Amino acid sequence: MLDEMANELENNDVHLDPKRVGRILEAVESGDGQRLEDVLDGLHPADIADFLEQIDESGREAFFSLWSGDAAGDVLSELDEGLREEVIGFLDPARLHAAVRDLDTDDVVDLVEDLEGVQKEAILGALEDVDRFAVEKALTYPEDTAGRLMQRHVVTAPEDWSVGQMIDFLRDNEDLPDQFYHVTLVDPRMAPVGNVTLGRMLSARRSALLRDLTEETFIPIEATETDENVAYAFNQYHLISTPVVDEGGRLVGVITIDDAMIVLSDEHEEDLLRLAGVGEGSMSDNVLDTVRVRLPWLAVNLGTAILASIVISQFADVLASVVALAVLMPIVASMGGNAGTQALTVAVRALATRDLTSSNMMRVVRREVLVGLVNGVAFAIVMGVIGWLWFGSAVIGAVLGVAMIVNLLVAGLAGILIPVVLERLKFDPALASGTFVTTVTDVIGFFAFLGLATYVLL
Amino acid sequence: MLDEMANELENNDVHLDPKRVGRILEAVESGDGQRLEDVLDGLHPADIADFLEQIDESGREAFFSLWSGDAAGDVLSELDEGLREEVIGFLDPARLHAAVRDLDTDDVVDLVEDLEGVQKEAILGALEDVDRFAVEKALTYPEDTAGRLMQRHVVTAPEDWSVGQMIDFLRDNEDLPDQFYHVTLVDPRMAPVGNVTLGRMLSARRSALLRDLTEETFIPIEATETDENVAYAFNQYHLISTPVVDEGGRLVGVITIDDAMIVLSDEHEEDLLRLAGVGEGSMSDNVLDTVRVRLPWLAVNLGTAILASIVISQFADVLASVVALAVLMPIVASMGGNAGTQALTVAVRALATRDLTSSNMMRVVRREVLVGLVNGVAFAIVMGVIGWLWFGSAVIGAVLGVAMIVNLLVAGLAGILIPVVLERLKFDPALASGTFVTTVTDVIGFFAFLGLATYVLL
Repeated sequence: MLDEMANELENNDVHLDPKRVGRILEAVESGDGQRLEDVLDGLHPADIADFLEQIDESGREAFFSLWSGDAAGDVLSELDEGLREEVIGFLDPARLHAAVRDLDTDDVVDLVEDLEGVQKEAILGALEDVDRFAVEKALTYPEDTAGRLMQRHVVTAPEDWSVGQMIDFLRDNEDLPDQFYHVTLVDPRMAPVGNVTLGRMLSARRSALLRDLTEETFIPIEATETDENVAYAFNQYHLISTPVVDEGGRLVGVITIDDAMIVLSDEHEEDLLRLAGVGEGSMSDNVLDTVRVRLPWLAVNLGTAILASIVISQFADVLASVVALAVLMPIVASMGGNAGTQALTVAVRALATRDLTSSNMMRVVRREVLVGLVNGVAFAIVMGVIGWLWFGSAVIGAVLGVAMIVNLLVAGLAGILIPVVLERLKFDPALASGTFVTTVTDVIGFFAFLGLATYVLL
Repeated sequence: MLDEMANELENNDVHLDPKRVGRILEAVESGDGQRLEDVLDGLHPADIADFLEQIDESGREAFFSLWSGDAAGDVLSELDEGLREEVIGFLDPARLHAAVRDLDTDDVVDLVEDLEGVQKEAILGALEDVDRFAVEKALTYPEDTAGRLMQRHVVTAPEDWSVGQMIDFLRDNEDLPDQFYHVTLVDPRMAPVGNVTLGRMLSARRSALLRDLTEETFIPIEATETDENVAYAFNQYHLISTPVVDEGGRLVGVITIDDAMIVLSDEHEEDLLRLAGVGEGSMSDNVLDTVRVRLPWLAVNLGTAILASIVISQFADVLASVVALAVLMPIVASMGGNAGTQALTVAVRALATRDLTSSNMMRVVRREVLVGLVNGVAFAIVMGVIGWLWFGSAVIGAVLGVAMIVNLLVAGLAGILIPVVLERLKFDPALASGTFVTTVTDVIGFFAFLGLATYVLL
C-alpha cells in the first residue's frame, strides 16, 4: 500500500517510503548534516516521527546528534508517546527550548502530561509566561477530558458585531491562532452563544450581523467532559471546532477536529487491542515492554483454560472409554468461541458508536439468540453427519449435534449480554469481554458434549 | 455513557437518549404530527437517523407516514446504508425530490451508489441538471476512490489574486458551498498550486497576495486514489480539506475532513469486524442478514477445527491410555491461540496505520519471537508444575511445559508473518489472519503436546 501511495504521490515527494527511510539512514550514517537536511527536505514532521518509530534507539540518538532542523517540536508532538521521553533526552536544553516554544499550548499539554520531574520542568520552563499559565491551567483538568484537549486561544466576538467589524478586527490582530475555522460569539459574561464559520462570514455583506450568520449545530462542551464524548460529538455532528466552557458556562478554550480525530483513532485502537487481550502496544515497544503488556492477559486466559480443563476432568471415565470424544470435543468449544466472538465484537462496536442502547437491546438480544439457533442447527446437522461417518456411531453424531446447538445458543447470548453488563457496571466492555465469552463457551461446550455423552454412552 | 452525555448536554437538548427515544415513539403512536414535530425539535439529523436504526421496520414506516420535517435528505444520508433503500420506499416522490435537492452532490453520490433501478433513477431525476451531471461524473470513478468522496463545488482563485480581490469575489458570489475552509489557487490550466486557509486570509492585509499565504502542507489527491489512502493522508497530515485532481493534474473537486473521518471510521470498523470473523454487521440487520454474514466464517472455522481434530485423532492410542492428556491439551491450544491473536492484532493495526513497514519488519519479527519465548518459558514453568501436581507425573508436567514453549513461539511468529504475507499478496490482512493463526496454533499445539507425549509415555 505504501508503495502505491508512494507512486501516486511521487510528484509531491512529501511522504515516507522504505526507499526514503533507507536514504535517511544512509545520510545519518554518513555523519553529513547537510546531506541529512537534503533527504529530509519536504518531509512532514509526522513522517519524520514515523521514521523515528521505525528505527532503533541508537539510530534515533545518531539522528538527533546530526539533525539541526527546526521542526523538532512538531516531530516530538507527532511521536509515539512511548518514545518521547527518550527523544527529549537527546535534545540539548537550547534545542528543547526552541522546539517547545513553536508548539500550540494544546500540543505542549499533550507532551508534558506523560512526563515527570526534570523533563516536565524543562519544558514548562521553556514557555513564555502566558503559555506556561495556559498549560498549567489545562493540567488541572483530569486526564482524558476536554480541558486537556483544548487550545486556549479562541477567536471571539461580541454578539452585536457586524461582519465588517470582525474582518477589520482580524486584520489588525497580530496574534491569531495558526488554524481557526469559526468566530465564536460570546455574551458579556463570556458565555459562547454561537459559531460563525469563516466561509459564511466571507460571503456576507460587511454590514451583516454575525448573530444572523451562526451555524445551526452549536454544541459547547464542558471542560470536564471525557475526551471520548468529545470525539463522539465531533463524529456524530460533523463538527470542525467547538467551544469549551467551564462549569459556569464561560468560554475557556476551543477544540478543533484534528484533536478529536486523534482521540477517535486512539479509542478505536484501544477497542481493537483490548478485544484481542492486549492493553496497548506499538511497533516501537521493546521485548520487555511487550511481555509486560501481554503476559497478564495470557495469565488470565490460563486461568480460564484451566477451568475448562477441570470441567473435562470430570468426564475422565467416558473419555477413557470413548476416545472419539477427545478428538471431537475441541470442535464444539472452537465453534462456540468463534460464534461468541462474532456476537461480542458487533456488540462492543455498537456500544462504542452508541448504536446499541436500552431502546433496541431486547430486539438485539432476541436476534442473537435466533442467529445462534439457526447457525447451531445448521452446524449440528453437518457435524452430526460427519461425527457419525467418521466414528461409525450415530449416537456420537447426535451428541455432537445437540452440543453444537446448545453452545452456539449460549455463545450468542453471552456475546451480547456480557459486554452490555460490563458497560452497565461502568467497565470498558472491550476490556474483559473476550475472556469471559470464551470461558463461557468453553465450559458450556465441554460440559454439554461430555455430559451428554456420559448420559448416553456410559 | 449516554446518560452522562445527556445530563451534561441537557441545556442544549440536541441529543438522543433512551427517554427521548421513548417520547418520539409515543408521539409516533399517537399519530399526532405536531406532537412528533415538537419532540424532534432541535434534534440533529444524525440523531434522527440513529433513532430510526434503533427501532424496527414497522416503526420506521409509521414514523415517515407521520413526519413532514424538512430534514429528510440529511436523515437519509446519515442513515445506515442497509436501511436507506427501505426508507426511500417510505417517501413519496415529491418528498424524495425535495429531500435530495437539499443535499450536497457528494452526499447524493453516497446515497445512490448502493441503489439500483427505479430508486436510483428517482433520485437522479430529482436533481438539477448541473448537480445530476456532477453525480453521474462522480459515479464514473471506481467505488471507494477519491472521485466518489469529493464535492465538485470548489472555491478557487487565480494565482495572482490579492486578498482584497478574493474577499470581494466571495462577497459577490451567491452560490458558495455550505462548508469551505480553503481557497484553492489554480494555474491557468486549472491545476491546483496551493491552499490558503480562510483564517490566514482574513488576518492578512487586503493588498497581500494569496500566493504568499499558502499553507506549507499541500497534498492534492488523484481522483482514482483509494479512499483508504485519502483517509490516511488526512489523518497523517492533519488536513482539513484538499483538492482532487484528474490524471492530467487538473482540479476536479475537493474532499473535506468530515468525509475522510467517515472513511477512517469505516476502515476501523471493518478491521475490527473482520478480525472477529464478521464481514460486516450492524444493529439494524435482521436475523437472516446476520446469519448470512456470520455462517460462512463459522464454516471456515469448522474446517480448521476439523483439521485440528484430525491431528488429535492420530494420537488416539496415547489419549486412550493417558486420559490426563485429553484434559490438558485444550490448555496448550488455547494459550497458543491467545498469544497468536495478541501478536496478530498488533500487527494488523500497525499495517493499517503504516507503522509496520519493510524498514522495521525484521526487528518486529525478532521481537515477537523473543516475546513468545519469554512468555512460553514463564507459562511452561507454571503449567509444568500444575500438570505435575495435578496428575502426579513430572513427565506429563514436562511435556506440557515444552509444548507450551513451542506453541507460544509459533504463535508469535504466525501472528506477525501471516498478516504481513497477506498484505504482500494484496489481501486485507484483517480478513483471514485470525483463522490462519488459530489453525496454526491449534495444529501445532495438539501435535507438539500429543506427539511429545506419545514419544515419552508410550
